[in-house]
Amino acid sequence: MKIRILVTGGTFDKKYDELTGRLFFKGTHVPEMLRRGRCRLDVAVETVMMVDSLEMDDAGRAAIVDRVRASPETAIVITHGTDTMVETARALADAGLSGKTIVLTGAMVPYAFGSSDGKFNLGSALSFVQVLPPGVYVAMNGQRFPWDAVRKNTVTGCFEGV
Amino acid sequence: MKIRILVTGGTFDKKYDELTGRLFFKGTHVPEMLRRGRCRLDVAVETVMMVDSLEMDDAGRAAIVDRVRASPETAIVITHGTDTMVETARALADAGLSGKTIVLTGAMVPYAFGSSDGKFNLGSALSFVQVLPPGVYVAMNGQRFPWDAVRKNTVTGCFEGV
Amino acid sequence: MKIRILVTGGTFDKKYDELTGRLFFKGTHVPEMLRRGRCRLDVAVETVMMVDSLEMDDAGRAAIVDRVRASPETAIVITHGTDTMVETARALADAGLSGKTIVLTGAMVPYAFGSSDGKFNLGSALSFVQVLPPGVYVAMNGQRFPWDAVRKNTVTGCFEGV
Amino acid sequence: MKIRILVTGGTFDKKYDELTGRLFFKGTHVPEMLRRGRCRLDVAVETVMMVDSLEMDDAGRAAIVDRVRASPETAIVITHGTDTMVETARALADAGLSGKTIVLTGAMVPYAFGSSDGKFNLGSALSFVQVLPPGVYVAMNGQRFPWDAVRKNTVTGCFEGV
Repeated sequence: MKIRILVTGGTFDKKYDELTGRLFFKGTHVPEMLRRGRCRLDVAVETVMMVDSLEMDDAGRAAIVDRVRASPETAIVITHGTDTMVETARALADAGLSGKTIVLTGAMVPYAFGSSDGKFNLGSALSFVQVLPPGVYVAMNGQRFPWDAVRKNTVTGCFEGV
Repeated sequence: MKIRILVTGGTFDKKYDELTGRLFFKGTHVPEMLRRGRCRLDVAVETVMMVDSLEMDDAGRAAIVDRVRASPETAIVITHGTDTMVETARALADAGLSGKTIVLTGAMVPYAFGSSDGKFNLGSALSFVQVLPPGVYVAMNGQRFPWDAVRKNTVTGCFEGV
Repeated sequence: MKIRILVTGGTFDKKYDELTGRLFFKGTHVPEMLRRGRCRLDVAVETVMMVDSLEMDDAGRAAIVDRVRASPETAIVITHGTDTMVETARALADAGLSGKTIVLTGAMVPYAFGSSDGKFNLGSALSFVQVLPPGVYVAMNGQRFPWDAVRKNTVTGCFEGV
Repeated sequence: MKIRILVTGGTFDKKYDELTGRLFFKGTHVPEMLRRGRCRLDVAVETVMMVDSLEMDDAGRAAIVDRVRASPETAIVITHGTDTMVETARALADAGLSGKTIVLTGAMVPYAFGSSDGKFNLGSALSFVQVLPPGVYVAMNGQRFPWDAVRKNTVTGCFEGV
């Protein structure tokens, strides 16, 4: 089974800029994370954009939908900021991308900072995408949720079913 | 869904003893890994033993089978050394533990050492165990294999289907 | 020889707040860093404040001077943000704290983020403070500089003699 | 001031071989540690050998003495296994290398494993070597000891003055 990972940024891929003290994006860490996980799946990694999901807008979501539609793979993982992950999931569901299993995931702590949930979530999402039937899902906190039955609890920072 | 993680040791949980320069076992790191992964699943962690899988024998495997049989949960992840993980999977399949989804996983690099595949594999195994039908599986390298169609390639250190 | 470490914050001790995505201060990491370094010196760790050095002002500097004056130890390391470390060094030199060896240090990357210069700089500062004659110094980038002959190069983020 | 770091191995530079589960040497991590420490000293790094210090013998010590004698620098740090660091220090003192400040250091936990004392010790040794008068010293646990007044306490794993 071939899998495509579409990278859109989010806390997942943030880095610390020591000169300014701010967080920023450079290249994605996903290939390194796959190496560290000794992942032997047939995976294509494609960077669509690198944005904080608070900056994600309709145009950004449309671009993600386009890339999913254009993917030859039917199993797709999307790394995304957690703040608006559910909104992007909804946009994907509305786009009617039938026959594809799409799993969105992210991280609460940048992979680059150590103590990150990044590798755990990536392993989780890559596993769910191989087994779940076509549809759009969010995979966070070890769980998967259908796109229309999940929200991010902004107090705890965790995702929960609704 | 309640999940039980049975810990048996393996490279997954090894630590470095700075006084002797050797690797040894102390307590399991699984609870810490679940915290780092911000895992919100209902998980019970039970340490059955802490051994290198080269030291795993029939008595050890019988003990693991007993603990699986005694678990109220039907979704069970077992952390295990990679060298004899397939043998233990076979023992579990032979034990006729019907109605349970059992996923074995481990790590090539101790979680304690950084650059480990531990969190990736744990996230992967916990996800597979939630969606696979009853049976015995090995989850390594991002993939899952039925117990009777997998082996560890000792040259590459990776698991492959046979 | 007894040494006192006065903690004032800076990037050295920043943490990542996963709920807001911002950096903040909680307790100092210095005791943990001393344990990781297996430091066997007789060290007292005292938190004076926890601020980014861009927020350091005359009142803050006066407080640091007071704590240096009040220290029974004659060997003092001060952890401090790098942006205004030289200004604080000047304030200490102007305070006429004779008989004390005072070494300021910090970090360009938070200790909590991995890949940090924190432990390297702490080991460096603790070594310089044991052997340098009384006076005020900055210890960064493996070097020590007299307080009146150093500046931070804001382009490279490194300290250099002037 | 130019400094030369002579690398001889020891726990400092050990790596974990995931295929065999053993520790081994590959290239030294010292250049990476200097980069992480943002070290701006003028440092030459030379690998003399990569051995566990339990395997250090007279021939090995003679080789180290030769490299110190051949160094144009008068400030030399030697990374070395902790078990026989004091013996090598003695061999250097006996060699009559006048006019050189020689500081030996090492680590109790491999740098590659995280939670290492490596960077702390390297920062410490590089600082001591810039300030101490000619002679042979051991720098561990934040302290420096003259070569003839130190031993490793094998119970605690720490160095102490005698």
